[in-house]
Amino acid sequence: MTATQTSQSNWRIPDLLAMKRDGLAYSEDQIAFLVRSVSDRSMDDCQLGALLMAVKLQDMTDAETIALTKGMRDSGSVFSWPKDWRVVDKHSTGGVGDKVSLALAPALAACGFKVPMISGRGLEHTGGTLDKLESIPGFKVSLTEAEMKKALEEVGCCIVGQTADIVPADRRMYAPRDVTSTVKSVPLIVSSIISKKAAETESGLVLDVKFGGGAFMKTQEEAGALAKKMVDVANGVGMATTALLTTMDVPLGRAIGNALEVRESLECLRGNGPEDLEELVTYLGGELLLSAGAASTLEEARQKLAKTLRDGSARTAFCNMIQKQGVTKSVAEALCGDVPDYSHLPSSVHVTAIKAASSGVLVGMDAMAMAKISLELGAGRNKVGDPINYSVGIMLVKVVGESVKEGETWAELHHDSPLPPSLLQKMQGAVTIKASAEARKPSRVAARVV
Amino acid sequence: MTATQTSQSNWRIPDLLAMKRDGLAYSEDQIAFLVRSVSDRSMDDCQLGALLMAVKLQDMTDAETIALTKGMRDSGSVFSWPKDWRVVDKHSTGGVGDKVSLALAPALAACGFKVPMISGRGLEHTGGTLDKLESIPGFKVSLTEAEMKKALEEVGCCIVGQTADIVPADRRMYAPRDVTSTVKSVPLIVSSIISKKAAETESGLVLDVKFGGGAFMKTQEEAGALAKKMVDVANGVGMATTALLTTMDVPLGRAIGNALEVRESLECLRGNGPEDLEELVTYLGGELLLSAGAASTLEEARQKLAKTLRDGSARTAFCNMIQKQGVTKSVAEALCGDVPDYSHLPSSVHVTAIKAASSGVLVGMDAMAMAKISLELGAGRNKVGDPINYSVGIMLVKVVGESVKEGETWAELHHDSPLPPSLLQKMQGAVTIKASAEARKPSRVAARVV
Repeated sequence: MTATQTSQSNWRIPDLLAMKRDGLAYSEDQIAFLVRSVSDRSMDDCQLGALLMAVKLQDMTDAETIALTKGMRDSGSVFSWPKDWRVVDKHSTGGVGDKVSLALAPALAACGFKVPMISGRGLEHTGGTLDKLESIPGFKVSLTEAEMKKALEEVGCCIVGQTADIVPADRRMYAPRDVTSTVKSVPLIVSSIISKKAAETESGLVLDVKFGGGAFMKTQEEAGALAKKMVDVANGVGMATTALLTTMDVPLGRAIGNALEVRESLECLRGNGPEDLEELVTYLGGELLLSAGAASTLEEARQKLAKTLRDGSARTAFCNMIQKQGVTKSVAEALCGDVPDYSHLPSSVHVTAIKAASSGVLVGMDAMAMAKISLELGAGRNKVGDPINYSVGIMLVKVVGESVKEGETWAELHHDSPLPPSLLQKMQGAVTIKASAEARKPSRVAARVV
Repeated sequence: MTATQTSQSNWRIPDLLAMKRDGLAYSEDQIAFLVRSVSDRSMDDCQLGALLMAVKLQDMTDAETIALTKGMRDSGSVFSWPKDWRVVDKHSTGGVGDKVSLALAPALAACGFKVPMISGRGLEHTGGTLDKLESIPGFKVSLTEAEMKKALEEVGCCIVGQTADIVPADRRMYAPRDVTSTVKSVPLIVSSIISKKAAETESGLVLDVKFGGGAFMKTQEEAGALAKKMVDVANGVGMATTALLTTMDVPLGRAIGNALEVRESLECLRGNGPEDLEELVTYLGGELLLSAGAASTLEEARQKLAKTLRDGSARTAFCNMIQKQGVTKSVAEALCGDVPDYSHLPSSVHVTAIKAASSGVLVGMDAMAMAKISLELGAGRNKVGDPINYSVGIMLVKVVGESVKEGETWAELHHDSPLPPSLLQKMQGAVTIKASAEARKPSRVAARVV
């Protein structure tokens, strides 16, 4: 730090802005200086806006993005864990019905890892892991660092919200990126995501980079380019990192909506979850086991993960984790017992069956349309701070690759208010049934990026 | 205004920033909306910084720059003059020893024009017309619009400072452009200059675009490109405009420093000024006479201007103008009388002669070096708000193209404090004397841009 602080006086913010304006690359020290100027507000708002636009238009090299990520990590608190812990985490770019974290964190804990997962809330079409967990009565997303450490020591995992002292530079940039239309800048996206993971002080990280109609990135090419950048940068800041490119054209699993997804996660933790959910949990977890040398092949790694889902060890970790996060023993044990009891989870007033208009094979289901229907039912929020309804959502009785007969129920809408006819039309419009088609369930994992 | 205001609600600032980020051109209505958002601060500082950087990097078309200039003009007060007035002005991009305005405004008034000249102060190497005029005891640069109108009615010209209600959008952008390193953006430069002239409601404008060692632009190509843009934009907002590209390698005239330059301007108004100063006054003024149809050839126009310098009519206009701006009759008449009396102007404590180190022809004089020496003597300011010393400066006894003998005085330094030896060295270093060279005085006007 001393050398860097000494050289601060050599730079003026306008001169550094002129460098990026002219397409030049910053040194690591220059980026550290810029990030400190963001955090301590010696860079004014005009300059921050200009910097964001210059970075968006002139881009950054990998070395710059790594330096930016380190600088942002070091702008706030960084966790300090016992040396012998194998601290790992997963990050997803967001999809529809994505409840992987709820099953994966306890499964990894059951494999001996420590998972201090910092997660987020849902906005617009994306659900939020924290929102889903909050549908469990008593669950709290805020833990002190001491509470997190105790949960990791005794259980192996926790899933919490971001605290004010983690990566403050990212918080100062969040709203300006939005209002200046500079969100879609690869170095800004990558440094924002990876710096927060780096502040968790992980030794291993796996990225679930989704593409398709229900994801932020529409094509595998886009997703691959971002994944490669994230993997390189995360490795560059010292985390052993791989990424999977996974499809997000159809919702993940059969449940969309907060309490409905918790319930499905618990089924996955019983070994009874949807195939595609278990596929993602074991592939993503498998990457971390491989990186850590806890398995010699991906197949062996996936089987170890799957075993924790079947032998109850992952479910026990989940049961203990939610108790560390405020849920009473009786609620936790009812949810996680050998005989499932979901009566403590909120449930909707009405359940309306949606029936197939024709017979055939379900060949398409529009994840984005499903997400919007779920949002319209009240399961999500249009803007930060909106209240959400934990009980409502969609249950898919049939998923892509399954046959359906005319008049047969293919989905259930869980709702508290009367359904507008337009919403029923949207449901029917979101599904494609073909009279004669091969009944084939798609694989989720499209490619691996190292 | 009504139609434009109605369509405001169709735009969000982030969407407009995204357009320029992506290299698209704005419509006139979109630019008017953006300028209003700058003036009324509904655009926040982050967004302003991002907009400035996006414009700097993605540029603007001529149509956009014209719309920006109109929008800025309309962000504040616009003067309203009697229909039959021929209102004209000159703008210079700034040089060393440039006192053209002091002679040109009254000369144009003597030709029957109205010249509501809004001028600026000096900063770093550039002198300011307002600073020069303030070396005349009692001169005030602030006039109300009513006072300006009275001066124009009765005298024909005034030279005043910018008021708070003229082009407020430009004032909000001024400091942000500086701190975000986006000053050197052609559409931002052009709109800033031309909008202020447009708010003076002129029918004619001439631009003095300087290039060379003592100017902001170093090459004729750069100056020509900027001049072309300024001419097109000024014509686009309704002012008949031409530009001259003029050299600024050596100081203009023989005087550098505030009171010294006033004195030289008065000599010019007596027809006894330096050749190059009179050349610029008559060429620039001639452009305006030609545009207005007050002469049929440039030569005829120049002769009309020169006549006002020789028959005392321009000097009378100057004498009356400074009285309208606070100078007493006795001081004004002493300065402007047939027998010059400059005793009311401040003068320095010391005058030190600078002697030639060798005999020959003066072939070069570094305008920028002279400007810095004058600044060091106290004639200018390093930052906005610094006090200045009106009496100090440089008088060139010899100028480029004249012969000098070893030991002969080629310049005088007017100073109040002892001269540091380094400054004397800088003086000698700023001049080039060749033993055998053609004694040729350079022409100032290099090209005309229409």
